[in-house]
Amino acid sequence: MKITVLSGGVGGARFLRGLRDAISPTDEVTAVVNVGDDMWLTGLRIAPDLDSIMYTLAGENDERRGWGRVGETERVSGELRAYGVGWPWFTLGDLDIGTHLTRSHLLREGLPLSEVTARIASRWPLGVRLIPATDDEVETHVVTAEATMHFQEWWTRHRASIPALSFDYRGVAESTPARGVLDAITEADAVLLAPSNPVVSIGPILAIPGIRTALAATSARVVGVSPIISGAVVRGMADACLTAIGVSTTADAVALHYGARSNGGVLDDWLVDNSDSQLTSAIEAAGIRAHVVPLWMRDPESSATLGRHALAAAVG
Amino acid sequence: MKITVLSGGVGGARFLRGLRDAISPTDEVTAVVNVGDDMWLTGLRIAPDLDSIMYTLAGENDERRGWGRVGETERVSGELRAYGVGWPWFTLGDLDIGTHLTRSHLLREGLPLSEVTARIASRWPLGVRLIPATDDEVETHVVTAEATMHFQEWWTRHRASIPALSFDYRGVAESTPARGVLDAITEADAVLLAPSNPVVSIGPILAIPGIRTALAATSARVVGVSPIISGAVVRGMADACLTAIGVSTTADAVALHYGARSNGGVLDDWLVDNSDSQLTSAIEAAGIRAHVVPLWMRDPESSATLGRHALAAAVG
Repeated sequence: MKITVLSGGVGGARFLRGLRDAISPTDEVTAVVNVGDDMWLTGLRIAPDLDSIMYTLAGENDERRGWGRVGETERVSGELRAYGVGWPWFTLGDLDIGTHLTRSHLLREGLPLSEVTARIASRWPLGVRLIPATDDEVETHVVTAEATMHFQEWWTRHRASIPALSFDYRGVAESTPARGVLDAITEADAVLLAPSNPVVSIGPILAIPGIRTALAATSARVVGVSPIISGAVVRGMADACLTAIGVSTTADAVALHYGARSNGGVLDDWLVDNSDSQLTSAIEAAGIRAHVVPLWMRDPESSATLGRHALAAAVG
Repeated sequence: MKITVLSGGVGGARFLRGLRDAISPTDEVTAVVNVGDDMWLTGLRIAPDLDSIMYTLAGENDERRGWGRVGETERVSGELRAYGVGWPWFTLGDLDIGTHLTRSHLLREGLPLSEVTARIASRWPLGVRLIPATDDEVETHVVTAEATMHFQEWWTRHRASIPALSFDYRGVAESTPARGVLDAITEADAVLLAPSNPVVSIGPILAIPGIRTALAATSARVVGVSPIISGAVVRGMADACLTAIGVSTTADAVALHYGARSNGGVLDDWLVDNSDSQLTSAIEAAGIRAHVVPLWMRDPESSATLGRHALAAAVG
């Protein structure tokens, strides 16, 4: 079975790890990963979502902190601060810088990000193929009343506390999906939307020309997992993003935002948490099958169970 | 008094530190530094001689190892090796990478190396102004019977064990001195040649068009310090370099290689070690004043004494 997952970073990484534990040995999982958070910083190409997924699948992520490498140090960052370069509020771990240096070096040698990602990821037996949604540099910028800034500045420096008016996936109209992305969607037996931020993780993927068309064309069912449980985001500050685009922070509102595939949207199925069972009628009314299952990924076991539920919806 | 020193890395750094301790508060020391060892490695611009001098003058160098930062770690390098990029035999410390990242970033922003160096060096009160000999990328390559390779590969990987046929200061004919270099030489009250490698440290500086002319024109005396004591190199593998260009590893042969300024060369004075006092007649016969002084820089005190002797020769 070929399974393709559209994914952001931390939440998507957990979902993918659970899914990997849920599949059979002959199944193949491809993750199409958001690059909207990516940026150049002091000559380093940083790809937070690709790295979060890679580190998590490699068992190298810092579980306690929730991001980055386990056993990380920040000696290089200390030097950058002392020299007065970079963003003092954006910390780069030393091990992480090893990844960024490798990526930046290979990009400068002329390899597209998808090839660079494959080469970097080949260090570990991840069990999931990672493809950036696009090889182009499409970075999300946030428009506020006072300024437009890179998503990372809004998210990490300002903790999403400045009201966002809109999000600009800069350059997306001229971008193309990375090699393998469209095939991964159209030839899949199941397409899953990870419980990632709908606006700044899944949104930038869907905005790349050709991806929505591929989602419309695939013979696979498209199953989404709600990132909202009981009217609250599971992690991160997705509510600040949803508010900006006029979507309520509820599992049904996000489903309707994605829309039914039968009606120009992208979803056939939508997984909501047990605590949100009262929302299924609104979702079903929109033409999307609703499945009530436990969504909390507390540990490897509950994450694998969620993966099984998503696959069951896709084949059901 | 304005003192300008042409210098390579480790030996030059010690000499400059001693000189700084020897001068009076109104004296100004400018170091014109070799860039022939510089290179790009995994997207980092590495400038070993500039950094050796900066770290030594800042008191941040590893005295025991002789190079790099004290308290250094190699976590990023370990990652680069795991990803299979870079030169496995060329170790980059984490603190050192902070410097390289800063330099590379500022170079990519369009600043010339001389400005980048001034900005980086401003972090510490070095007491010496550092100028790269040129802002151009003039890297030394070593021609052997089997291959031509970057100086660093020959020096660090092969420990200078492959016989060198010649040295190629690649691009030097089209290079120009960095801003401030020619003025530093022509307006100096004393010009000193540090006891650095004559072939791959001082040689690449002298090969930059305009530098020899400035040395010929300056009203200051030009005083060199022998890097050879008792027929042996004090540090490094300069003998392998001297042999390649047909110069004996003796204090007088190096003096004659530089030549007397009165005869188209660069030296007015040459400091040789007490143990080489028998060589003075050959040096003087070539039109170079010889001074017999202790050359070993064992500690700050002996280094400062050497600085005083060099200055005494320059004003004497």
